[in-house]
Amino acid sequence: MSTSGSPTFVPPAARIAVFDNDGTLWCERPTYPQAFFIMERVRELAAADPELAALPVVQALVRGDLRAATAGGLEPLGEIVTRAHAGLTVEEFAEAASAWFGRAVHPRFGVGFGRLVYLPMLELLDLLRASGFRVFVVTGGGVEFVRAVSRELYGIPPDDVVGTSVELEVERRDGRLVLVRRATLIGRSNEGEPKPMNIQAHVGQRPIFAAGNSAGDREMLEYASTGPLPSLSIVIDHDDDEREYAYGSASFTDPGA
Amino acid sequence: MSTSGSPTFVPPAARIAVFDNDGTLWCERPTYPQAFFIMERVRELAAADPELAALPVVQALVRGDLRAATAGGLEPLGEIVTRAHAGLTVEEFAEAASAWFGRAVHPRFGVGFGRLVYLPMLELLDLLRASGFRVFVVTGGGVEFVRAVSRELYGIPPDDVVGTSVELEVERRDGRLVLVRRATLIGRSNEGEPKPMNIQAHVGQRPIFAAGNSAGDREMLEYASTGPLPSLSIVIDHDDDEREYAYGSASFTDPGA
Repeated sequence: MSTSGSPTFVPPAARIAVFDNDGTLWCERPTYPQAFFIMERVRELAAADPELAALPVVQALVRGDLRAATAGGLEPLGEIVTRAHAGLTVEEFAEAASAWFGRAVHPRFGVGFGRLVYLPMLELLDLLRASGFRVFVVTGGGVEFVRAVSRELYGIPPDDVVGTSVELEVERRDGRLVLVRRATLIGRSNEGEPKPMNIQAHVGQRPIFAAGNSAGDREMLEYASTGPLPSLSIVIDHDDDEREYAYGSASFTDPGA
Repeated sequence: MSTSGSPTFVPPAARIAVFDNDGTLWCERPTYPQAFFIMERVRELAAADPELAALPVVQALVRGDLRAATAGGLEPLGEIVTRAHAGLTVEEFAEAASAWFGRAVHPRFGVGFGRLVYLPMLELLDLLRASGFRVFVVTGGGVEFVRAVSRELYGIPPDDVVGTSVELEVERRDGRLVLVRRATLIGRSNEGEPKPMNIQAHVGQRPIFAAGNSAGDREMLEYASTGPLPSLSIVIDHDDDEREYAYGSASFTDPGA
């Protein structure tokens, strides 16, 4: 937790708060909810495509073994992740994500992933909004995946979610202009330095409040706490193995941090 | 003007309206306000840098001759445009843009560029907001340039402006994390197909209302009017040479359209 500057008047325009998602707003263990979503899709694709099914990373995903899936580094996994939903329109993807949230169940807690949000964090979102803040989710996860439930879970509309994005292609289908997902990311994953970069690209203002829980949030927290205005950056520490998980700030994407 | 679908209930979530800026919300003749802003900066840079001053496109800009500046195509011009403010932090750029809006005067009308917005369009923005719409500016111009005045001119906060963006770099200056503008664009200019692509990347929902005035808006208008919901796309026709300019939908960036 860090504060900077003296408590002066902050104009409403500058009241921007940013929240990481995985491990900050919702439970990210035993692995990211999006990983379960993608594993389900990869199982379907692999069943129809023997060549895909033969890839070691795909075999690991089909077994649900995320540690084995990342054994060759994050790149082969990232390739499969972006390939998994390529070719879908953005509307088809949003429907697939919503449908998955409606049926998938957490392996330990036996409830939907959307129910595994942290109540104290929801109270914090409400408190900030009541104090005139605009609240944004800034996730390393796929932006469209989180958007599918951001309003329902957090009261945050789709346009206030910033995340990792895939390239889109303009196509015409049945006389309609549609946007089709490609298998390549726009820039890098929204972790580390890209977080403040994408906050600026999307929000256009430096936040004065930031919450995160892992190394991928470091630059975002630093960005919020080194501006000219009073600010607050907080780090969520996972230390309750009984009610949730105890893992500090370790993350899959940067296990050594 | 085109409508599609039958008048059914539209949930609040889907009430997204998008507006082009140059020639749709504010006057874009004799050339884009941003071109004047950049010409001023290029004059300053050229005065201190003989090598830069020797480039034909820079000489044309120093003379204020935008037609000559585009004679070699848009690419050499685009290079100078992105170079003009490279190295500034995003805060420094915002200050430079605000200061310019405070002092620059339109060559024909003798008032600040910020005063050359179309009143009927402001009424339309208010009407849409009163009807529960979220209103976004989707400009081919630089996103940070328009953000500097979007709240003051249109009541639209910086995060609801989508536009052409330059790459940013994370640096530390005086112990602060700052974002520094680079001389390269992120992707393409926000004209044509990139407009719907960037609407999706930023807003995450298909608009049901769109307003534009030139060929660069075509795909955005088509995107808004070919969704599953009732929609309206409008094109502004400039036909009043006495009170403004008469040029139909011709544009500098796509003069043949």
